[in-house]
Amino acid sequence: MDLIKIKDPGFLKELSTTELEALSDDIRQFLIEKLSITGGHIGPNLGVVELTIALHKCFDSPKDKIIWDVGHQSYVHKILTGRASQFDTLRQFKGLCGFPKRIESDHDVWETGHSSTSLSAAMGMAIARDLKKDDSFIIPVIGDGALTGGMALEALNHIGHEKKDMIVILNDNEMSIAPNVGALHSVLGRLRTAGKYQWVKDELEMLLKKIPAVGGRLASTAERVKDSLKYLLVSGIFFEELGFTYLGPVDGHNYEDLFENLSYAKKTEGPVLLHVITKKGKGYQPAENDKIGTWHGTGSYKIETGDFVKPINPPPAWSKLVSETVRQLAREDERIVAITPAMPVGSKLEGFASEFPDRMYDVGIAEQHAATVAAGLATQNMKPFLAIYSTFLQRAYDQVVHDICRQNLNVFIGIDRAGLVGADGETHQGVFDIAFLRHLPNMVLMMPKDENEGQHMVNTAIKYDNGPIAMRFPRGNGIGVPMDEQLQTIPIGSWEILRDGEDAAILTFGTTIPMAMEAAAILEKQGVSVKVVNARFIKPLDDKMLKGILSDAMPVFTIEEAVLQGGFGSAVLEFAHNNGYHNSRIERMGIPDEFIEHGSVSELLKEIGMTVENVVQKMKILARKKQKRA
Amino acid sequence: MDLIKIKDPGFLKELSTTELEALSDDIRQFLIEKLSITGGHIGPNLGVVELTIALHKCFDSPKDKIIWDVGHQSYVHKILTGRASQFDTLRQFKGLCGFPKRIESDHDVWETGHSSTSLSAAMGMAIARDLKKDDSFIIPVIGDGALTGGMALEALNHIGHEKKDMIVILNDNEMSIAPNVGALHSVLGRLRTAGKYQWVKDELEMLLKKIPAVGGRLASTAERVKDSLKYLLVSGIFFEELGFTYLGPVDGHNYEDLFENLSYAKKTEGPVLLHVITKKGKGYQPAENDKIGTWHGTGSYKIETGDFVKPINPPPAWSKLVSETVRQLAREDERIVAITPAMPVGSKLEGFASEFPDRMYDVGIAEQHAATVAAGLATQNMKPFLAIYSTFLQRAYDQVVHDICRQNLNVFIGIDRAGLVGADGETHQGVFDIAFLRHLPNMVLMMPKDENEGQHMVNTAIKYDNGPIAMRFPRGNGIGVPMDEQLQTIPIGSWEILRDGEDAAILTFGTTIPMAMEAAAILEKQGVSVKVVNARFIKPLDDKMLKGILSDAMPVFTIEEAVLQGGFGSAVLEFAHNNGYHNSRIERMGIPDEFIEHGSVSELLKEIGMTVENVVQKMKILARKKQKRA
Repeated sequence: MDLIKIKDPGFLKELSTTELEALSDDIRQFLIEKLSITGGHIGPNLGVVELTIALHKCFDSPKDKIIWDVGHQSYVHKILTGRASQFDTLRQFKGLCGFPKRIESDHDVWETGHSSTSLSAAMGMAIARDLKKDDSFIIPVIGDGALTGGMALEALNHIGHEKKDMIVILNDNEMSIAPNVGALHSVLGRLRTAGKYQWVKDELEMLLKKIPAVGGRLASTAERVKDSLKYLLVSGIFFEELGFTYLGPVDGHNYEDLFENLSYAKKTEGPVLLHVITKKGKGYQPAENDKIGTWHGTGSYKIETGDFVKPINPPPAWSKLVSETVRQLAREDERIVAITPAMPVGSKLEGFASEFPDRMYDVGIAEQHAATVAAGLATQNMKPFLAIYSTFLQRAYDQVVHDICRQNLNVFIGIDRAGLVGADGETHQGVFDIAFLRHLPNMVLMMPKDENEGQHMVNTAIKYDNGPIAMRFPRGNGIGVPMDEQLQTIPIGSWEILRDGEDAAILTFGTTIPMAMEAAAILEKQGVSVKVVNARFIKPLDDKMLKGILSDAMPVFTIEEAVLQGGFGSAVLEFAHNNGYHNSRIERMGIPDEFIEHGSVSELLKEIGMTVENVVQKMKILARKKQKRA
Repeated sequence: MDLIKIKDPGFLKELSTTELEALSDDIRQFLIEKLSITGGHIGPNLGVVELTIALHKCFDSPKDKIIWDVGHQSYVHKILTGRASQFDTLRQFKGLCGFPKRIESDHDVWETGHSSTSLSAAMGMAIARDLKKDDSFIIPVIGDGALTGGMALEALNHIGHEKKDMIVILNDNEMSIAPNVGALHSVLGRLRTAGKYQWVKDELEMLLKKIPAVGGRLASTAERVKDSLKYLLVSGIFFEELGFTYLGPVDGHNYEDLFENLSYAKKTEGPVLLHVITKKGKGYQPAENDKIGTWHGTGSYKIETGDFVKPINPPPAWSKLVSETVRQLAREDERIVAITPAMPVGSKLEGFASEFPDRMYDVGIAEQHAATVAAGLATQNMKPFLAIYSTFLQRAYDQVVHDICRQNLNVFIGIDRAGLVGADGETHQGVFDIAFLRHLPNMVLMMPKDENEGQHMVNTAIKYDNGPIAMRFPRGNGIGVPMDEQLQTIPIGSWEILRDGEDAAILTFGTTIPMAMEAAAILEKQGVSVKVVNARFIKPLDDKMLKGILSDAMPVFTIEEAVLQGGFGSAVLEFAHNNGYHNSRIERMGIPDEFIEHGSVSELLKEIGMTVENVVQKMKILARKKQKRA
């Protein structure tokens, strides 16, 4: 059928299973084609085609509330709720968002991006529904990977205790973003293999014969019910123990099975967990065959071959540069252990993992735990490298405050995807990290200007033994500079003058340095001489250099790809006023006080006015005042 | 025995059970006496006397690592590791810390204060131990309440998966800080009542007769194993499912039982969970009888009667003022629902809970979940009041960013214990909240000058319907001002001039206003006229008033009981520079870039130089410059 004509999911009520199957095929074809151009989360969405259709057929959205955990699997939902025509703009500037978005549709009842929030949101909605004596269904859809996130477990516990009516769909695809870890996953695995209610009475009795009579206390503990019995008996027991009615496992690509279970779930009082088995990438061979998560989210690809359309010979990816430098150092320093919360592929830790399998821990989607494991390691004089994206580090803020900074432990935090990230949008922009880390005692925070300085900074961080040290680095690739053979260390708190000048100074770091250099070159031609400083340490500042600049009454312009409030520019303001430079002329450029949507990084920078032209213009005003005074 | 003479726990190895029992009595007596003067966490410590002694007898600390979750139950440990003589200074300025502290003793291997971190720390230490091929034991001790914290569940999952050797002591006292909630607790409850391995073969067979043959698929689900069977069978199954060997439950006040189980645990490979049942307050009747957590942590008390030594007729406690005002408003506004993460007593929500039992949710120690439940409620046009301490809000930072601020939802966050909290020290100081909230788009952040303004602010927050709004308020009591009968609303972003003046302006809010007013009075006598502004909105600022002050070239002094970096004073600096007031003279007073230890609030303020004298002195310098210019 023509998907573009779909206005809302009401038409599904009339369709037969055969017609739904044809619709599934159409939707798969549509997604494979559209995403081959725009890129996007192809694997997760191909996996939930039938599930999404079944939910919209069995429930009445938006009266009934379908809540997509993480939200990158909401494309089918977007098609069924009238947004197929917008898929050419998916994840592009001013285009369709890759996650649920309340302003896009009434059917998007909850916005996501980070994992594990759906159950808590559902609990809030269920409380509201019951107080209003409304009779709507609430249906959070959560993946098995997201279940390892602490707040999902907090929520399961609370929902089970309160016995709130809700239908939790556990979308179990054996893979979160990377292959799952954790005992919880192994429980799910056993459920899967146990199949459909094989624990019949006969089998039980047979197994019971193998149980020894209960003897002494400790002996009995050791020889208790054997695994074979237990695993057969406890199909779903994990969730039932928490107070849920467990249904499933059910084939998530079989409409009849889905309808049967969903209709039973609707009749069941209290919280229900419906365990649905789906296959990521279902219906597109390259994605179906994916074992490590390559097809979780992609850029453009060729449909026939599944080859990715990538730039030829790009400079080294930042993630890879950092992880491979850590790997190189780990050959000499046995204390180095890498920790990642479910991002071994994104953080390019595969090489490290294969060379040092016992020194690499993927803890699953569990950012808080990851940060504190790193702290625990550091108490034992180890050198943990916590590889984490800026946006996910937000979830470990308290652990960074208490466990890492307060105990002043030697943890190296590699903050990946710092700054604007582009197509993933609002929930993934790494723009808060400076503001939420800079005020923490003992923290050293830095950002390199290019990949060569990056490798030296990694070395600096590993060698540093005076407390926590974090290096932020952007999404994507380096800029293609020559790499030194020998690793060096960079003095903590030292900035670098990239270009000297007299009329004003630009202080910046990382990704915005090229913008500053370009502006300075233009300004020079216009007779304005600008100093450009690589302010690579955001904390501590280079006191000496900064005093020199301020003493000279040189106007200062700070640029940062991060929120302005409490950011690097504010640190410069604080420094100036703390040190008596009250008449300094200091202006700041950075991310304004709003959430930044999806789009290419260059489009976003332009949208918020962070452009070479604007730097030039602002510097002319700043520098002119200096000239007037002189 | 004379506890003061204990240097380290080695002497325990030689003691008989009878001698240990005598030692337990001595320690209990010591704690009851000492804490009656100093106050402290009496209940938790009386509960773990035998457990702590048994751990130190069975293990070799500090080679073996005992990790106290939360840490307020570490007093017995402190006595056994040579610190009995310091108990007169407990929780006092420069005295013995109420939590484990690494600089105090090698036996304190991990610092705590917030709950649920011990398992992650233990995992880090276990990884380090195994890489070093060391053979030490790692023994985290965690309460049943702390187990509901998301990161503890993340850690259980990971530890079980990795099968790391460690002995987790589950100290199950049926009460965390308040009576526990959550399904996890109900599992523990069933374990307790199931007693010691009553699921013998005979009973099992008898119960099996009651199971119907497995029929149709959905029918079988509904009629599966009855609760009675399941609960008997699954004693410990929750933990065993996660990969732990479950031992217990064992009487935590019986030495022989403890020794038997600990020695079995030592011989067991992989992670062990030893379930120990203790009684909070054991051995002191008033504390034993406590049902709601009054004796969790206390001030001074009279030993004979258990009466608390309190000031007579104090002004209303802040927590009570806020919660009771919300309660009053809830009578008119049915949308109001209160959410607390395990702090119903501390947040004084008992009255609200008894009047509106279906509109009050204690979600247990689960701050992340609490924040997102509030967000979920707000999506349904409800008016959630999230009652949370400043220090615990740190753990929900990402949820505040994404779920509350990004969706711009009408959540009222009541930030209790904001600013310095005193005896609880480093981990509980509420000094980061301004710095970690101010940079969030859509957030309104305010703090009242006194309890009368406080009640109006609560009303303002409830009436506000343009997004998230947070009110910080201090630990302790109001200042005793008269209370208006009618609740008013305060215009968002409006400051208030408390005292006019010409030579300089002090901008401050909340607890530091009296300091400013006192300084201004002294300065006036010395011929310096100071304007004092109640800058009750930290975000947004009162643009108009601030522009007026800066336009007038009036020097500005900001005072805040919060970290200086990225704080309120920085907001004023940012504002001045954003608006072209580059020559403004602005100085800031607040918490410096270090963690602040325990002590009375007045001692701590003095220590960091936040005193009336210093304000006077700094204002004289500031104001004088103004006069010179004029």
